[in-house]
Amino acid sequence: MTATPTKQPSPPPGRVTLVGAGPGDPDLLTVKALRLLQTADVVLYDTLVASEVMALVGAGVEKIHVGKKGYGDTRPQDEINARMVALARAGRHVLRLKSGDPLIFGRAGDEIAACRAAGVPVEVVPGITSAQGAAARLGVSLTHRHEARRLQYVTGHDATGGLPESLDWRSIADRQATTVVYMPRRTIGELARRVLAAGMDAATPAVVVVNATRDDERVARTTVGAVGEAVAAMGGNEPMLVLLGWAMGRGAE
Amino acid sequence: MTATPTKQPSPPPGRVTLVGAGPGDPDLLTVKALRLLQTADVVLYDTLVASEVMALVGAGVEKIHVGKKGYGDTRPQDEINARMVALARAGRHVLRLKSGDPLIFGRAGDEIAACRAAGVPVEVVPGITSAQGAAARLGVSLTHRHEARRLQYVTGHDATGGLPESLDWRSIADRQATTVVYMPRRTIGELARRVLAAGMDAATPAVVVVNATRDDERVARTTVGAVGEAVAAMGGNEPMLVLLGWAMGRGAE
Repeated sequence: MTATPTKQPSPPPGRVTLVGAGPGDPDLLTVKALRLLQTADVVLYDTLVASEVMALVGAGVEKIHVGKKGYGDTRPQDEINARMVALARAGRHVLRLKSGDPLIFGRAGDEIAACRAAGVPVEVVPGITSAQGAAARLGVSLTHRHEARRLQYVTGHDATGGLPESLDWRSIADRQATTVVYMPRRTIGELARRVLAAGMDAATPAVVVVNATRDDERVARTTVGAVGEAVAAMGGNEPMLVLLGWAMGRGAE
Repeated sequence: MTATPTKQPSPPPGRVTLVGAGPGDPDLLTVKALRLLQTADVVLYDTLVASEVMALVGAGVEKIHVGKKGYGDTRPQDEINARMVALARAGRHVLRLKSGDPLIFGRAGDEIAACRAAGVPVEVVPGITSAQGAAARLGVSLTHRHEARRLQYVTGHDATGGLPESLDWRSIADRQATTVVYMPRRTIGELARRVLAAGMDAATPAVVVVNATRDDERVARTTVGAVGEAVAAMGGNEPMLVLLGWAMGRGAE
């Protein structure tokens, strides 16, 4: 008898789950994110993910730091995509962990597209974004019904690190909006000049939050007119947010 | 010997925690929310909170339905405030549970103010808002870097149930924004007419999501030009969201 040629067994199917790590406090992880941190095969994580969150990764789960920082990437996005896809093609369940929510200024669009192009199944688990974490700690509604009909998130920089030229300054100057500026450290002074020129009241409350929801959270309350100086005075390079709008004046009541 | 008069013991201190229940899928609760559901003394919950979430409330925790529905309140806000404060003053840990995030169109501002006015300690735990849940299921970035520099949430109605007159239509018409309209059922047709008049391209993708993240989630893909008819055709009165913007066209790639 000769052996029947057998088909090479195909590798077990791998997959990618993009998961939001939330703003920092590990208590703000979703139940699903916590479970996946303990059951995935490998976690690819960014620099901005809090160490308290990384401490919850299961003992048998491989951790790979991909060095990305939201701004000033230390590793090209293409390289991260390729590594993520290769691990999944090798049959592993890859957890791609990003601070906040992957779908809000997390560049998840590129990573989802890379998975789809490679035929790798991809799923997304949302996370609490730092604006929500900051507002909860401040105890202020982002949409206070007397003050804000509209809540918006903008990024303080474009791919070159400068202020995005295509931002709609009038939409930020709008008296009925709350605006949260992500990664504002380098550009907030220029952003404030633009929105003041677009008609925003310089006395509009502005709250600067560093390390939102973490043990070392710091808060500075100022105004749009003075926010540039306030941010410059805070120094450092930790994660920062600026919240602008009249609803932000409700916190101290 | 005569008994020394003793001071009446003061009741144990009560408190209120406003907690986001997320969009529906109980796996999207935060770790902290799940723990509080099991350890609070009493849960005051709105109609919109998913039954799958309510099933996780601890056996010894009292549940009080306060009937509020985001739109068309069946109970006045003042009555809810008074009940919440009275329970906390009686020494209980009150969990005030709201769908989504309490600080995003959740009227939490009123409830926080009522607690502060009464001297009751109040804390907020953010929740995944339904826009985030819907985007995760769709697998689309809300801020795709080629399509959206700005993400905004607006409400489809004001206190009278009509379209808020103070909405900034141009900010929605902006080619570089993603807009999520909460509770759009009655007003989306009129909103679409306003933003088209403000210059929005009628071909801009629009995605209607009913019961985001729940087992019975339904999705309709359309355009801003046709969204009014699409919403009318879906019928029912379940929770609904509409997502508008060119980034929403990325989901099907």
